[in-house]
Amino acid sequence: MREMADLPAPLSPGATIGILGSGQLGRMLAMAAARLGLKCHIYADESGPAFDVAADKTIAKYDDGAALAAFAARVDAITYEFENVPVTAVEIIGRIKPVRPGAKALEVAQDRLNEKRLARDLGAMTAEFAAVGTRADLEGSVRRIGLPAILKTRRMGYDGKGQIRIKPGDDLAAALAVIDGQPAILESVVPFEREISVVGVRGAGGAFSAYDPVENEHRHHILHRSTVPARIGDRAAAEAVTVTRKLAEALDYIGLIAVEFFVVGTGAAEALYVNEIAPRVHNSGHWTIDACTVSQFENHMRAVAGWPLGTTARHADAVMLNLIGPEALDWPALVARPGAAVHLYGKRDARPGRKMGHVTMISPRKIKD
Amino acid sequence: MREMADLPAPLSPGATIGILGSGQLGRMLAMAAARLGLKCHIYADESGPAFDVAADKTIAKYDDGAALAAFAARVDAITYEFENVPVTAVEIIGRIKPVRPGAKALEVAQDRLNEKRLARDLGAMTAEFAAVGTRADLEGSVRRIGLPAILKTRRMGYDGKGQIRIKPGDDLAAALAVIDGQPAILESVVPFEREISVVGVRGAGGAFSAYDPVENEHRHHILHRSTVPARIGDRAAAEAVTVTRKLAEALDYIGLIAVEFFVVGTGAAEALYVNEIAPRVHNSGHWTIDACTVSQFENHMRAVAGWPLGTTARHADAVMLNLIGPEALDWPALVARPGAAVHLYGKRDARPGRKMGHVTMISPRKIKD
Repeated sequence: MREMADLPAPLSPGATIGILGSGQLGRMLAMAAARLGLKCHIYADESGPAFDVAADKTIAKYDDGAALAAFAARVDAITYEFENVPVTAVEIIGRIKPVRPGAKALEVAQDRLNEKRLARDLGAMTAEFAAVGTRADLEGSVRRIGLPAILKTRRMGYDGKGQIRIKPGDDLAAALAVIDGQPAILESVVPFEREISVVGVRGAGGAFSAYDPVENEHRHHILHRSTVPARIGDRAAAEAVTVTRKLAEALDYIGLIAVEFFVVGTGAAEALYVNEIAPRVHNSGHWTIDACTVSQFENHMRAVAGWPLGTTARHADAVMLNLIGPEALDWPALVARPGAAVHLYGKRDARPGRKMGHVTMISPRKIKD
Repeated sequence: MREMADLPAPLSPGATIGILGSGQLGRMLAMAAARLGLKCHIYADESGPAFDVAADKTIAKYDDGAALAAFAARVDAITYEFENVPVTAVEIIGRIKPVRPGAKALEVAQDRLNEKRLARDLGAMTAEFAAVGTRADLEGSVRRIGLPAILKTRRMGYDGKGQIRIKPGDDLAAALAVIDGQPAILESVVPFEREISVVGVRGAGGAFSAYDPVENEHRHHILHRSTVPARIGDRAAAEAVTVTRKLAEALDYIGLIAVEFFVVGTGAAEALYVNEIAPRVHNSGHWTIDACTVSQFENHMRAVAGWPLGTTARHADAVMLNLIGPEALDWPALVARPGAAVHLYGKRDARPGRKMGHVTMISPRKIKD
């Protein structure tokens, strides 16, 4: 009870949660908040899908201190839908209202080097890695890690942007040109059987809960399909959840966190390597809208509001397919598909590589007692 | 194919659906539309819960012809969340954009006498009834129907408003005072075992689908609890769906329709009496958000948009409890309830009798193959 007394009071229904970012994640967060009687105020540097479902909107740059302060004054708590929120913005609004998850989570998740170091500190495995600033760093790192390896900018990378694979014999200068002088990290290539993720949530009082691990398939570095349950053993599934919980605890995390893992080996030799940490709701958790009573979006908003977490149990197995770019033009066939849960994000241009929506198919099952 | 060619083209994602009414039904309709990439524009005579989740809002009277016309010009199709929309408003907007369901459904559902006559015309049973305009009518009707009976205004009644039960020996003048000179209907009291409803949906092309019948319990004339499956036999369940389909077809209906029935007798003697028709999404269908892949709200919006209907199968049994007035003040306990799907409507004052939210508990089940 002492711990509870130290917490800020939970928000009441009718309170307003501010969201930095106007994309589809902000949109689905706002819809989950609305279900709980909470209002949302979206702050973004341009109009986006979240604007259509929110009570309030601000369009301003993420470095506009006055606009950020005015926004923070009008809401009761603040969260974000993307991990590349400038830390200075979080500092400004954090002085006025609670920002969840906090700055510590951002500092780690915005930097691939910090991310991997934290995972290792907690006893988890990762790819081999080395910080790269100069040509000399890169040459030394290549000697140590070997090739093939992947050179990635430490910051601002997503969906395969800001990274290049280096094979034996490749020109290192060309690789360095891709990262354009930015601080980088060289990572060994992990020979994985499959990729999984854990979508977990930590409440303001420290409670932690996770959805079952998800198996993910990417195409062109963009998530294509998520399937739950993932094809992994019970031991690996439990370990993935434990690592996610430890990461959340180390980051004093409040809200939804997603951790991507490589699964290496099979059977008794199955091992997990932490690949990435996302300090936000995650594409690989979209299936929870249709296969769970409480979705990742609602659980994030419950945590941000200081409410008890909802169940992370699922009532169905699920397969989620992303609709990328022109795939969404096929909507007449998708909405006619028997049993399909179709989600469209309200984006106008179906540009290649753009996440336009997703479709979930569920196979109902009895929840284990 | 000829039939399809006569239909207006389906709306595309990104189109805007206008909704008359800003209450919780409009709110949940707007959220369902957003899931499909459709925008909503709410038109209402006062701000309400739907405003917080809609892209556009108009506050104007329902008899403001200019405001109605401007609203209709800005949307692609129109629907409503309450059956007491003035028919003149529907005439104005219906000249500019398709209104679904159409005027025919409103004309019948707004008048208890028309409603019962249509049900009888289609071969369904109803309470005994008689139109009452004068004291002489009432006396004659009481002689024919007997007492106890219920005197109800033909129009504008909901949640037990505008009605009075007349027992033997009661003063008929006092009863007439309650209806205050409005056209009325006297109905016999049906000695029912239970009340059920069917929530069905008819698409623009004539396809019809229904969720499983729901058992409803009222308190103080307001829905208290809905349970699915209802405790009725297979024959009665099938008949309830058939009657609902016939009513929808007779009304050239597009969208979601709810029909309330009294269940009289048990076992082989089980019989259904049509009680009320609601030309809109219905409180007794709220459980579909959590226990079905496609909710009543989404199916209504699919029909309004001219899209194929979604599945009405449920993946779980469900019990929905309304949160009426101060019951919603108990939200901290409700959101902590394991497995509960909590829905709060964002209304400020928890006035007695006001629908503030609902809670659904689901029991997952295998869908029958």
